[in-house]
Amino acid sequence: MFTPRIPSKADIKLIRSLGQKKFREQTGLFVVEGEKMVEEALAQKRFPVEAVYRTADTGEETMGRMSLLSSPSPALAVLRMASASGTAASSGAARPSAGSTPLPEGLCLALDSVRDPGNVGTILRLADWFGIDTVYLSPDCVDIYNPKTVQATMGSIFRQKAVICGLTELARRCREASVPVYATALEGGQDIRKAPLETGRALIVMGSERDGVSPELLALSDARLYIPSFAADAADRAESLNVAIATAVTCYEFRRR
Amino acid sequence: MFTPRIPSKADIKLIRSLGQKKFREQTGLFVVEGEKMVEEALAQKRFPVEAVYRTADTGEETMGRMSLLSSPSPALAVLRMASASGTAASSGAARPSAGSTPLPEGLCLALDSVRDPGNVGTILRLADWFGIDTVYLSPDCVDIYNPKTVQATMGSIFRQKAVICGLTELARRCREASVPVYATALEGGQDIRKAPLETGRALIVMGSERDGVSPELLALSDARLYIPSFAADAADRAESLNVAIATAVTCYEFRRR
Repeated sequence: MFTPRIPSKADIKLIRSLGQKKFREQTGLFVVEGEKMVEEALAQKRFPVEAVYRTADTGEETMGRMSLLSSPSPALAVLRMASASGTAASSGAARPSAGSTPLPEGLCLALDSVRDPGNVGTILRLADWFGIDTVYLSPDCVDIYNPKTVQATMGSIFRQKAVICGLTELARRCREASVPVYATALEGGQDIRKAPLETGRALIVMGSERDGVSPELLALSDARLYIPSFAADAADRAESLNVAIATAVTCYEFRRR
Repeated sequence: MFTPRIPSKADIKLIRSLGQKKFREQTGLFVVEGEKMVEEALAQKRFPVEAVYRTADTGEETMGRMSLLSSPSPALAVLRMASASGTAASSGAARPSAGSTPLPEGLCLALDSVRDPGNVGTILRLADWFGIDTVYLSPDCVDIYNPKTVQATMGSIFRQKAVICGLTELARRCREASVPVYATALEGGQDIRKAPLETGRALIVMGSERDGVSPELLALSDARLYIPSFAADAADRAESLNVAIATAVTCYEFRRR
């Protein structure tokens, strides 16, 4: 339905609206930007490509009007979320209820209320790198089709399994199925370097930067892990790590064993 | 010189201009935003505080006009960079020549052409957490007083030593002084989990996301380290890690030993 090569006024208006979750959910569409992302979009099969625009055809001004990022790229594609294939990341529309969410088969991450778009995108990317089976997101996490999130995945949005579901219910079912649940915390619990870890099949819960992992999820965890600070003067150092950074170190420790 | 509590038109104009490096260098001023950052700014001694504004006094509209971030905070402070104290991060103006840059005393990082403001801020924050002695930045890295960088440090800008200098010259001097230089790479070199590492005093060089560590710096390195990907199907996984993520895993491995 999009005009090819040169977007119509209506196309531009629609694309601009996809900066907002409401309109992404209404239309089932999202946007990727940049030569590399568009190239990967055309090569993947998960999300049907509805339109591709390039500065060479549209001119810079039009591209600038369509771009949802702070600096426009020479290429932009509109994709349809949630294909019929089972492995597709669930869109807001296709959100499964917690009872039907598949349990972890390997090492999985759960993000509890992580709201920063860049962090969630960076986590999807590193999960892809570290061979994480699935990233579960609580419904109040930032939408994975947010333009900044998509961009920060650097293409991992096309590969990494992501599922939106209630984490408390998921953790409860993991425990019933004897899948260990690890929660990360700023302090308390065990030093991750020395903690015994089940690395084959487990759920690792990361909390929001402001509040950490919710008390309900902490109560459902088999162990609480923290990343020690190595500053000489711990009283006068960073109070916390960025959640994507903490996720990376945690995944690395699990994979390193 | 700033009007206290309610900014004048000239104040607002000046503050807005501090989004650009040129004006930060001309004035020697930079901005921090957010209640927590302003609180930390008032508690620290490195950068003199020139003005503090709060929404309660200015009203939301004025705050919105002053803010250099995508969403304005209820507090904003203007600080003077580069205090006389020796440990202050060097501003563009007070950039030391490479020959006079102090060599690493402990574990140090060097950022080669890292241009994303959020990445550099996140790296300063994690360096603070991991007790990194100094972060050296090549002159073409993003300015550490960029508003997004400052914000991503979450206060570590007030603590972490950062020095802008030519990295080739620095690496050469490290070698002369028998300080080991490690370069990180996407492939080639040694798996960081198994590589012998001198963890007491060393320079760890991180490259830009696009180009990695420059050939000159690679040639000056004692060892090249890579973080293995743990994806089952390496052909179909993320091609790289975000530079802040790679820095975190590298620092963690050095500190973990």
